[in-house]
Amino acid sequence: MIPMRHITLLTDFGYLDGYPGIMKGVIYSIAPSVQIADITHSIAPQNIQEGALVLFRSYRYFPAGTIHVAVIDPGVGTNRRPIAMRLGDHFFVGPDNGLFSPVICEARKSNDPLQFIHLNRPQFWLPKPSRVFHGRDIFAPVAAHLASGVPLDALGDPIDDPVMIQLDEPIRTPQGWIGKVIAVDHFGNLSTNITDLHLAEMDQIKITVAGRTIHGLVKTFGERPPGELIALIGTDHDLSISVVNGDAKSLLGVKVGDEIIVEGKST
Amino acid sequence: MIPMRHITLLTDFGYLDGYPGIMKGVIYSIAPSVQIADITHSIAPQNIQEGALVLFRSYRYFPAGTIHVAVIDPGVGTNRRPIAMRLGDHFFVGPDNGLFSPVICEARKSNDPLQFIHLNRPQFWLPKPSRVFHGRDIFAPVAAHLASGVPLDALGDPIDDPVMIQLDEPIRTPQGWIGKVIAVDHFGNLSTNITDLHLAEMDQIKITVAGRTIHGLVKTFGERPPGELIALIGTDHDLSISVVNGDAKSLLGVKVGDEIIVEGKST
Amino acid sequence: MIPMRHITLLTDFGYLDGYPGIMKGVIYSIAPSVQIADITHSIAPQNIQEGALVLFRSYRYFPAGTIHVAVIDPGVGTNRRPIAMRLGDHFFVGPDNGLFSPVICEARKSNDPLQFIHLNRPQFWLPKPSRVFHGRDIFAPVAAHLASGVPLDALGDPIDDPVMIQLDEPIRTPQGWIGKVIAVDHFGNLSTNITDLHLAEMDQIKITVAGRTIHGLVKTFGERPPGELIALIGTDHDLSISVVNGDAKSLLGVKVGDEIIVEGKST
Repeated sequence: MIPMRHITLLTDFGYLDGYPGIMKGVIYSIAPSVQIADITHSIAPQNIQEGALVLFRSYRYFPAGTIHVAVIDPGVGTNRRPIAMRLGDHFFVGPDNGLFSPVICEARKSNDPLQFIHLNRPQFWLPKPSRVFHGRDIFAPVAAHLASGVPLDALGDPIDDPVMIQLDEPIRTPQGWIGKVIAVDHFGNLSTNITDLHLAEMDQIKITVAGRTIHGLVKTFGERPPGELIALIGTDHDLSISVVNGDAKSLLGVKVGDEIIVEGKST
Repeated sequence: MIPMRHITLLTDFGYLDGYPGIMKGVIYSIAPSVQIADITHSIAPQNIQEGALVLFRSYRYFPAGTIHVAVIDPGVGTNRRPIAMRLGDHFFVGPDNGLFSPVICEARKSNDPLQFIHLNRPQFWLPKPSRVFHGRDIFAPVAAHLASGVPLDALGDPIDDPVMIQLDEPIRTPQGWIGKVIAVDHFGNLSTNITDLHLAEMDQIKITVAGRTIHGLVKTFGERPPGELIALIGTDHDLSISVVNGDAKSLLGVKVGDEIIVEGKST
Repeated sequence: MIPMRHITLLTDFGYLDGYPGIMKGVIYSIAPSVQIADITHSIAPQNIQEGALVLFRSYRYFPAGTIHVAVIDPGVGTNRRPIAMRLGDHFFVGPDNGLFSPVICEARKSNDPLQFIHLNRPQFWLPKPSRVFHGRDIFAPVAAHLASGVPLDALGDPIDDPVMIQLDEPIRTPQGWIGKVIAVDHFGNLSTNITDLHLAEMDQIKITVAGRTIHGLVKTFGERPPGELIALIGTDHDLSISVVNGDAKSLLGVKVGDEIIVEGKST
């Protein structure tokens, strides 16, 4: 008996059109007993960096053996490769366009077992795949076959050169760091590419964003009154900017890519 | 043992209020082990044509035996009939208002076995059904009873006259076709009622939409640079209008129902 | 063998960021075979009253034994308690901030067995819980342990003083009632805190809202032509204001909290 397997979906398809539902239908048709969990379908259209970040922050909370299908795919139908991979205890399926860079990067650092496959065996796809919807025609069926017990290396030829994209790292300055807003969540909280590691040896921290200055970090929202602009270490060890019970994005008028400056004293 | 069964949900209830969640609760209370998949809950309110189109394009990807619950129901509480049906290997449950026209039409053409039932046996509903939420009170429990092994014809009396609505067909012209935009997806791609069959014997195709002209079809988004307006055959064999890595709806300012003209030479 | 268990999720996390997906990953890692159903993730940010209302209207449709995880949590990281409880046949997990007031209130009236637990045993949480995301770090793992067979009273110390918030009740007037709009759904229908019980002994009802007057109640949308403003008893026994095939919220320009006046004659 094949044990219960989990498949996650992360796309930029939105919730209007039934595209994620169609992918679930394809999966259930091949692997009727898997559990499917949506991570999100609201990645900004074609935004590979945003998809890569949300996937990186989410996948680790799923059980060992989970198969993560991620489809942000501006190059669908071109010669960009469809790929599948094993990184430690997790499996990933999607386009070879950098979407998996952060998870690959982390796995390479940790010496986890790695395996990359070019999905070039159409017997594991839907018949007559379209040139515009590989989520339905290639990635969903491949994930379902994996969940049904087909070995990863049966799905295509091994490769060792997945496309990697560079995620912006913060820049060191004499007084601290210049970073960027890398995500804005549903509440209007700003996530940045500056982490608790960058701030570990700094004291008397002063943060400048959109012309506003924040002195020091708090540990919880509840330390300050509603409406106050605060900085804290977020759920992913990232320096985050928030408004207590409010919306920092609207207050500051910032967007992904905007600059954030951290200054302080070395400890 | 009853095998794993799948139920899909397609409604215009949105994601605000918990209505789809309530339907899932009702289903699990009767059939605890079914798998439920959302197709979408974002159909425009009361738009039967849009719901019919999305259902038609989605249902076929689910496993044989799947029960599709669709609720776009402006006539809820009136004398419009609640119905269930078997069309080939798939089951459908919902209001008798035309929502199932395209799937019925296709099934009739293919000589699949067809069975239509008027849901008029309250013992398979929730007690004291409301006049405003038959998704919860009639359709969800009926689908769950079907999934639990109740035979379709036990749920009500047989009928043979489900309500059919006419979907717009494109009009033949001396030079080609006049069609309509029938859907706009999350990316702003326009889907039309002109299909690859309509274009099969045409050459040197010229498409006019919102005062803009597109010459020829491409096969993939990647053939043209970002920002270019293109036409291609979409995921459902439909003539589609897109902007590479962009949003055709916003660029053209078009909406569902707007005209699209195709001209060319006969081959 | 542990029977199939169901877990519901209700949050204000939205669908952008993958937060609900992360909670599902945490749950599946501990309890791989549970069924998870989203009630909604679109509660207005930090709006405990709205979350309490949607939870109250939804939970009862799920099977006995369901575990409801609700996270509207402006006090996350402060000294507000994390709690779990049993109310009759249902279990609830979330912050102790009033979110569960209506379900507790109802259970107390009905003499159901009640049990309240302060979640103060970190062995049932994720290691090193953050101060900003207890949905992931405390509530999801606790719910999964419950689903896996850990007894409720093993999860923490018993308490008997959950935080209760007052939901607005309508005010009696010589001619009828003054109530409030308490929810606006996806269709723009207005739900009020006046129920069929309040109206049981009234006749010749006249309703005033946003300067408009409605005479009498209808039983279904279909009784009146499209575009007409109507009042009816909604899905939750609540007096509701709607526009037939339209959007009462937009027509009237009202919002949650606005006043509604009902006048009539005693029967």
